[in-house]
Amino acid sequence: MSVLIVGSTALDSIKTPKGENPRLLGGSASHASVAASFFGPVNLIGVVGDDFPKRYLQLYKRHRINLDGLQILPGKTFHWSGEYEANMNNRRTLATELGVFETFSPELPEGCRTAPYVLLANIAPALQHHVLDQMRRPKFVVADTMDLWLNIALDDLIRLLKRLDGFVLNDSEARQLTGEDNLLAALKKVHRLGPRYVVIKLGSHGSVLSIPEGLFLCPAYPLRSVVDPTGAGDSFVGGMMGCLAASRGPVEKHLRRAMLYGSVVASFCCEGFGLQRTAKLTRAEIETRYSELREMVRV
Amino acid sequence: MSVLIVGSTALDSIKTPKGENPRLLGGSASHASVAASFFGPVNLIGVVGDDFPKRYLQLYKRHRINLDGLQILPGKTFHWSGEYEANMNNRRTLATELGVFETFSPELPEGCRTAPYVLLANIAPALQHHVLDQMRRPKFVVADTMDLWLNIALDDLIRLLKRLDGFVLNDSEARQLTGEDNLLAALKKVHRLGPRYVVIKLGSHGSVLSIPEGLFLCPAYPLRSVVDPTGAGDSFVGGMMGCLAASRGPVEKHLRRAMLYGSVVASFCCEGFGLQRTAKLTRAEIETRYSELREMVRV
Repeated sequence: MSVLIVGSTALDSIKTPKGENPRLLGGSASHASVAASFFGPVNLIGVVGDDFPKRYLQLYKRHRINLDGLQILPGKTFHWSGEYEANMNNRRTLATELGVFETFSPELPEGCRTAPYVLLANIAPALQHHVLDQMRRPKFVVADTMDLWLNIALDDLIRLLKRLDGFVLNDSEARQLTGEDNLLAALKKVHRLGPRYVVIKLGSHGSVLSIPEGLFLCPAYPLRSVVDPTGAGDSFVGGMMGCLAASRGPVEKHLRRAMLYGSVVASFCCEGFGLQRTAKLTRAEIETRYSELREMVRV
Repeated sequence: MSVLIVGSTALDSIKTPKGENPRLLGGSASHASVAASFFGPVNLIGVVGDDFPKRYLQLYKRHRINLDGLQILPGKTFHWSGEYEANMNNRRTLATELGVFETFSPELPEGCRTAPYVLLANIAPALQHHVLDQMRRPKFVVADTMDLWLNIALDDLIRLLKRLDGFVLNDSEARQLTGEDNLLAALKKVHRLGPRYVVIKLGSHGSVLSIPEGLFLCPAYPLRSVVDPTGAGDSFVGGMMGCLAASRGPVEKHLRRAMLYGSVVASFCCEGFGLQRTAKLTRAEIETRYSELREMVRV
């Protein structure tokens, strides 16, 4: 089955201790869509300017990502530039130029409105609502977010949480949203806001899934070298949703395996700038690393 | 089979955001021995002063810990006092009074020298050497350490590593010992120093076992509330060694399960000051939490 992914489609200029790369393909929807594409059909909903490099459109197409929902508007593509500290965990934003994103309103082509799996990747909660408004009875809806929306659009986000099956956020966002330092206490409060499935991402320490029946501690694949962690969280949730959409039967039956696949795709993402490593990835490489990761957590 | 444990036997005065407790039973050998005692026979090697409370000797005895190797000398018991910050990760030492530990030389009773499993819990590497010198062909020798010995007794520690099967240290100690920030790079360098089995402890993120055949990512049991993390690392390695000593056949076959049991005992340790929670623990409680933790990592 197909997955619909809405989020940012951007050009990222990224500086890390390992180097500097201008105008890489980036954005939450780009990372999530390429990650999901290894498992099955993807519909991308986003916007780019008329400066958007053709080679990036070709990159989407090479991954058989349906671009009917990608608007190409006169103006500049959303541009983010940031710099990572030596530990690769802390980053600071150097510049954000919204460009065509400033007035973006996601309009879903008719063929996209029946996608059973919906990933509302990181983007303003109002736009996530607007996408959901256009969907026809999706089977499984997951949203991601970022600290910015907790700061400036908390009410929209709180309303969104009641419309989701699953919600994905990182540990510092969970602390900010709930006021709880303790992971279990934070999970409990997020559940109360609506979602049945809550995933807290812990960076290089993996992630934790909470469902009413219990927890799943999902590992991260240990890496020898991290080149650029940008998009790792988007790749994780994109890979997870792609894997779920490709699996038959109830979501709960496949969620643990899907998260492990998400971890694997995210690990490749960190091994190159932007999407450089992920774009060269093969399904065979994913399967090899998936088997390795499974063996690393076998008791 | 029995496990021999040498390390510090101390009185700990601990202050955390949850409260303050003076003169608790503490020390690496105390925590490790009580943790190991839930799985089988333990021989404790250590020293205390004549001020050591009788109730703490009774606590050891209630856990059927053999005290033939515990010296009781005129003078004061080793006393450590420390304070934890709000996040419970950073702690600072307020005072260290060595007392009878200053001149301690571990002498092994004849009956202890043939113990097949040996845990050299955190103590000066010279004393760890001295214990090993007295052992008769142990089957499996593991050592733990702390940053202090990396600072003031590095040569002794490096020599010790060549005499071990397994070495346990935390992530910051691994960085200090190897100069490597990356976990895999650090593990590789520690292996080169001697031990076939290396475990790096990651606090609330669990631990990683490295053997030549690959990695095992061992989870920590998620806790609702951490009262006092003192001794959690010692409880982990004590529980692991106790479980290994109680299992038949090659160590490698049981190591993953043993580490999981170590994690479980360590989690109880964090739920009370000093050994207060661990001392009340039952094997049934351990088994319940072990089953829960296994289920949390099942894919």
